[in-house]
Amino acid sequence: MKKIINDSEQVVTEMLDGFASAYPNDVRRLQDTTVLVRKDAPVKNKVGIVSGGGSGHEPAHAGYIGEGMLDAAVAGEVFTSPTPDQVLEGIKAVNGGAGVFLVIKNYTGDVMNFEMAAELAEAEGIEVEKVVVNDDVAVEDSSFTTGRRGIAGTVLVHKIIGAKAETGASLEEIKATADKAVANVRSMGVALKPPVMPASGKPNFELNEDELEIGVGIHGEPGTERKAVSSANDIAVELTDLVLKDLNLTESDDVTVMINGLGATPEMELYIVNRKVQEHLQEKGINVYKTYVGNYMTSLEMAGCSVTLLKVDEELKELLNQPSKAPAFKV
Amino acid sequence: MKKIINDSEQVVTEMLDGFASAYPNDVRRLQDTTVLVRKDAPVKNKVGIVSGGGSGHEPAHAGYIGEGMLDAAVAGEVFTSPTPDQVLEGIKAVNGGAGVFLVIKNYTGDVMNFEMAAELAEAEGIEVEKVVVNDDVAVEDSSFTTGRRGIAGTVLVHKIIGAKAETGASLEEIKATADKAVANVRSMGVALKPPVMPASGKPNFELNEDELEIGVGIHGEPGTERKAVSSANDIAVELTDLVLKDLNLTESDDVTVMINGLGATPEMELYIVNRKVQEHLQEKGINVYKTYVGNYMTSLEMAGCSVTLLKVDEELKELLNQPSKAPAFKV
Repeated sequence: MKKIINDSEQVVTEMLDGFASAYPNDVRRLQDTTVLVRKDAPVKNKVGIVSGGGSGHEPAHAGYIGEGMLDAAVAGEVFTSPTPDQVLEGIKAVNGGAGVFLVIKNYTGDVMNFEMAAELAEAEGIEVEKVVVNDDVAVEDSSFTTGRRGIAGTVLVHKIIGAKAETGASLEEIKATADKAVANVRSMGVALKPPVMPASGKPNFELNEDELEIGVGIHGEPGTERKAVSSANDIAVELTDLVLKDLNLTESDDVTVMINGLGATPEMELYIVNRKVQEHLQEKGINVYKTYVGNYMTSLEMAGCSVTLLKVDEELKELLNQPSKAPAFKV
Repeated sequence: MKKIINDSEQVVTEMLDGFASAYPNDVRRLQDTTVLVRKDAPVKNKVGIVSGGGSGHEPAHAGYIGEGMLDAAVAGEVFTSPTPDQVLEGIKAVNGGAGVFLVIKNYTGDVMNFEMAAELAEAEGIEVEKVVVNDDVAVEDSSFTTGRRGIAGTVLVHKIIGAKAETGASLEEIKATADKAVANVRSMGVALKPPVMPASGKPNFELNEDELEIGVGIHGEPGTERKAVSSANDIAVELTDLVLKDLNLTESDDVTVMINGLGATPEMELYIVNRKVQEHLQEKGINVYKTYVGNYMTSLEMAGCSVTLLKVDEELKELLNQPSKAPAFKV
């Protein structure tokens, strides 16, 4: 197995320490947990924003910790939900008296464990609200999910409600904005090469040398179609059209675009995809308000990318432009 | 070949268009060139900073265009220096009357072509100064280079002199700061998997399934040693010690650390390496002032990483902390 690791059972804890030691003035690890929090957490009278999920999606989720974005990120093992007690530690650490808001990607384990943590926190007197992100239009149900999966669009939700929380918004106001963001964000991905699991040293699915798969999930969940590797332009149009079909845009709508690399995709390829996505949207009369290109929600060394569109109104635009000090999403 | 591209001969031009269309308010492409510049270039009375080199190292160099960093990035074909006429276009476009400063990575083609462009610009009455970055301690001479190669440390040089230029510093003052930064920055890399060239569809070197190579260059130039894949801790210590041996630090020195991914390395692995680098420096009594972890200077989908140390005095610290609006290096 070609990985720069020490012990496959220690990858998460060593990564968390490596992350905390990279940003000692901004982030700290809660001792004996898999939780990283803003150094200054809890921020008094601000709603604390907590996200997290399985590891292997870096820079998600720890890279989004910082003023203007997340207060805590809770890490599970690779591609495995964090346990409720870990999520609870995160909630408790960032509660500054105004309650805590959870951003959950729609995977069965995550939803169950974050909800259980919310119940435990409420039993301790902490008010908790949540949103479940399900931006992936690929499949309705999948090996990890009932309903649609949450993928790269989650990062835009983090940004939006992180900014909202900094304004002093209440839990209810944050919930309303989060619901709006989730209702207006859609993504679709393609994989060219699978990720290799640290524990087994094996790829978690197989693709022939000339094959790609449309709609693969960020844990290698099955997609919708396998076919010969096609051109960047074809891929860009196919992914964008699948997203557009579901988003019901009209010509006067503004969108934010995210071209997300899944881990091992050269950035050059992401920009080549972006070129066609922009051209295609322009041809359809859809105005692009802002574009993000890079590795935002990865799947270890999976090769491929996803296209995310978020329909933005004035509130969402303003929140996207607010400052963020998160290492992986500085504005 | 598993790449998301259209035509291997069009990858650079399509990438440049894709980059410009991602940041239309910040960056523009000079028509019929491979040059991207700050949207507001030339900035009057500010020294223009120009860098560039072969493509395939994204986000270098275009990702570093922006207020506080580069004014222009000139792209060559994949792993190939840009031609003098292209560099000249970049110089002319960012000359705001205070001259232009070139940051060149030490490869024979780059040095020759940037120097020729400088001469042509001077013949047109534009004052030009330059620095050649040679931070890679791996080998003295290599297939692309006389002397040491320039790799990820170049990004820190961009940041430092980009900030210096924003203060209104003269060409001579920028030259002095650039020389200081170059004199104090060292890097060392390791490769686990080669990059695949878009033109040939072939990897540009071969490594056995259980092998890594220490000291490989960012164009796949030969390194210093091949051996069995070892632990992240061993790799971190080996790379750091090779850098330290050359940097002559004393216990009271402060350093900036960059853990750079070469393209296909999961970010998780970079943080695991960072953990050990920080621990190792701490044991040696070396104080880390700031740390950067991510894909800063890549080699298409090469797997591996590099460790860069920059010894920082008060001036360099202050310049690193100044704002940068470059998409790939926001502060």
